[in-house]
Amino acid sequence: MYNCDKARLQNKIDTFSKFGDTGTGGITRLSLSEPALQARAEFKKRCEDLGMEFKTDDMGNMYTVHKGEEDLPAIVMGSHLDSVVNGGNFDGVLGVLTALEVAETIVSEKIKTRGPIAVMVWTNEEGSRFDPAMMSSGVVTGKFDKATMLNSKDKEGTAFGEALKASGYAGAEKNRLNADDYAGYFELHIEQGPVLEAEAKDIGVVEGVVGMINYEIDVKGVSDHAGTTPQKTRKDALYAASKIIIDLWEKLGKINPELVFTMGRINASPNIHTVIPKEVRFTLDARHKDPKIIERAAEVIKALPAEVAKCQVSYRQLWGRKTIEFNKDYVAAVQRAADGFGYSSRKIYSGAGHDAQYVADVMPATMIFVPSVNGHSHCVEEFTPTEAALKGANVLLNAVLEIDKNYRGR
Amino acid sequence: MYNCDKARLQNKIDTFSKFGDTGTGGITRLSLSEPALQARAEFKKRCEDLGMEFKTDDMGNMYTVHKGEEDLPAIVMGSHLDSVVNGGNFDGVLGVLTALEVAETIVSEKIKTRGPIAVMVWTNEEGSRFDPAMMSSGVVTGKFDKATMLNSKDKEGTAFGEALKASGYAGAEKNRLNADDYAGYFELHIEQGPVLEAEAKDIGVVEGVVGMINYEIDVKGVSDHAGTTPQKTRKDALYAASKIIIDLWEKLGKINPELVFTMGRINASPNIHTVIPKEVRFTLDARHKDPKIIERAAEVIKALPAEVAKCQVSYRQLWGRKTIEFNKDYVAAVQRAADGFGYSSRKIYSGAGHDAQYVADVMPATMIFVPSVNGHSHCVEEFTPTEAALKGANVLLNAVLEIDKNYRGR
Repeated sequence: MYNCDKARLQNKIDTFSKFGDTGTGGITRLSLSEPALQARAEFKKRCEDLGMEFKTDDMGNMYTVHKGEEDLPAIVMGSHLDSVVNGGNFDGVLGVLTALEVAETIVSEKIKTRGPIAVMVWTNEEGSRFDPAMMSSGVVTGKFDKATMLNSKDKEGTAFGEALKASGYAGAEKNRLNADDYAGYFELHIEQGPVLEAEAKDIGVVEGVVGMINYEIDVKGVSDHAGTTPQKTRKDALYAASKIIIDLWEKLGKINPELVFTMGRINASPNIHTVIPKEVRFTLDARHKDPKIIERAAEVIKALPAEVAKCQVSYRQLWGRKTIEFNKDYVAAVQRAADGFGYSSRKIYSGAGHDAQYVADVMPATMIFVPSVNGHSHCVEEFTPTEAALKGANVLLNAVLEIDKNYRGR
Repeated sequence: MYNCDKARLQNKIDTFSKFGDTGTGGITRLSLSEPALQARAEFKKRCEDLGMEFKTDDMGNMYTVHKGEEDLPAIVMGSHLDSVVNGGNFDGVLGVLTALEVAETIVSEKIKTRGPIAVMVWTNEEGSRFDPAMMSSGVVTGKFDKATMLNSKDKEGTAFGEALKASGYAGAEKNRLNADDYAGYFELHIEQGPVLEAEAKDIGVVEGVVGMINYEIDVKGVSDHAGTTPQKTRKDALYAASKIIIDLWEKLGKINPELVFTMGRINASPNIHTVIPKEVRFTLDARHKDPKIIERAAEVIKALPAEVAKCQVSYRQLWGRKTIEFNKDYVAAVQRAADGFGYSSRKIYSGAGHDAQYVADVMPATMIFVPSVNGHSHCVEEFTPTEAALKGANVLLNAVLEIDKNYRGR
């Protein structure tokens, strides 16, 4: 079993934590922003220092390749460098840095591989600056229309296409990740949840990404003056929405202990302290790996009464996805690598979406999770100790080497 | 009993409805905006056409005076011409137009008054462009600091003081409403509630403005990923806030049938559909004429548990006011005028705040309410038929004439 180097990995984490440092323990590194370009330049420099070939595709995705002994499709490891606003130093970037550390280990240890080993970085995974999330893996795997994505604008009105052009990272469409040039994909990521830490597991062997539904629930009341409208005649949309939220928690909570559901966004109108809310909209996100459980959650939403507390209730599905299953051989390679090191592990499904789920549609793919301290993610408290990240890097290295040895081939 | 003229009043309503017309049945006429300046110019022109003297004070409040036979302090009628965004054609402006109609009736009918009869327009009553509401009556009656108000900025960063200077309506501080030059104040206003209409009353004889409290309740949870955090470990601030809202409705609803309370504003953070809300803040406004009832409402808030659904709960009072009682002689004059015409009426307290409540601290003051169809206000559906407004104008005219006859004097 080959080992990655902890000091080198620490250096990578420390270096990249400076790009977009908010001074509060985290980063804001929106896609194609100045800090993101600094991170890209550092990534490119480090790849070239390792003697790896560097190129980009037409979505600004970056690829760097260490040649193998045979002319075979590459095994690629990747993730993203962009973050949410006030995000942490691990979501996405750790997948890039461990992949880089794996490549550096292969180069420095002169490990022979049959085929090429590649590292890639996806552009705009978070979707925090340019909607939607997983934009570039979506385009590359045919989920999203490229022209529409190029026109996606940030808050200042800058289009993704303009920012991409200005960045200098726009490359050729032929360089995109594809099933001819690449054999399969690995993505290491922090769990972004508390399960591995709670169960004291080193490694999450990710079997897939859970299916989800996202609804918007609309509650319509009547706006009147807070001081002059008797309580009994009111149609208060926030009161009705609160009743619905409590009711949904109770009903959804009974379906399955592993069903997760979130009312994450709520907007009241006119949202003035002296005016009765006339309309409240809130979102409901529900996730589970079993489509039957998701269906039961959807049934709860569809069974909402049309009227609650004299307000009109309606709903619409914003989006959804089916459960994605990762490639069984790749999952098994991760499991064997973890077992080989004697690391504790558990099978797990990802609740969050990742570029890997789109890649899984076009080639073998899987993910490796490492623990998130306190389960935090998308916040400055996001943390994974370097020892824990190193175990993930070691598993990544050895799983890649096993695939390279046994499963390569078109 | 003298009568105002319906056709003239209709003409006034129709004319002023054009200034800031949104094309949807209402107006947006923010203080000192272009439409508000058009309304001011029309007001000034109409006053001068009646031969009335026109002046402004240092807050841009406009005053116009019809001289009486003796050198006595003036009886002044007033309200405001500014509106909320997408407001209606009656809140505020109807008080100005009925006052103008009263003055026009006095002039055209050559009604002799002992003292001067004045009409005034308050600047920025709504506070929709420049915070706070009732800004200029607050300054004139010593509630607010003028320098602070001049520095209040709109969304574009324009200070109230700049807009006032640019308007050309800034006048001398000595012209402010004061207890030497003015004997007392009347303000006609739409009820902004459903009580008069529901009870088929023509006139609301307003006895005062109810006391109120306004709190902000803060609920702190922990933000984590919607897809990866098991339900049982969550600290979801929106779930907790919903429970608190339902609980407050239940407890406040039991205190007194005339207590009104509103959670009008709610803001969740980060307010993203895939993230568990880490903080929810909402406001609670409660109003009643009896300070003991208000105190009981405050006790319910103060008894909120420090922890709800694993989230931390805190509260702070944003503001409050005591119940304002209007001058009994002025209230009685309104009642007699209504009775004299055979109009149906009821005693009522204002739930909303009005400039009159500040004026009441420095001189005798009262208000007259006319019905609001369906109780709507601060919306384009706001409506009061001209017949109903005319009854209010007639009551205003005759109440002013009675005070002029019997109660004048320093």
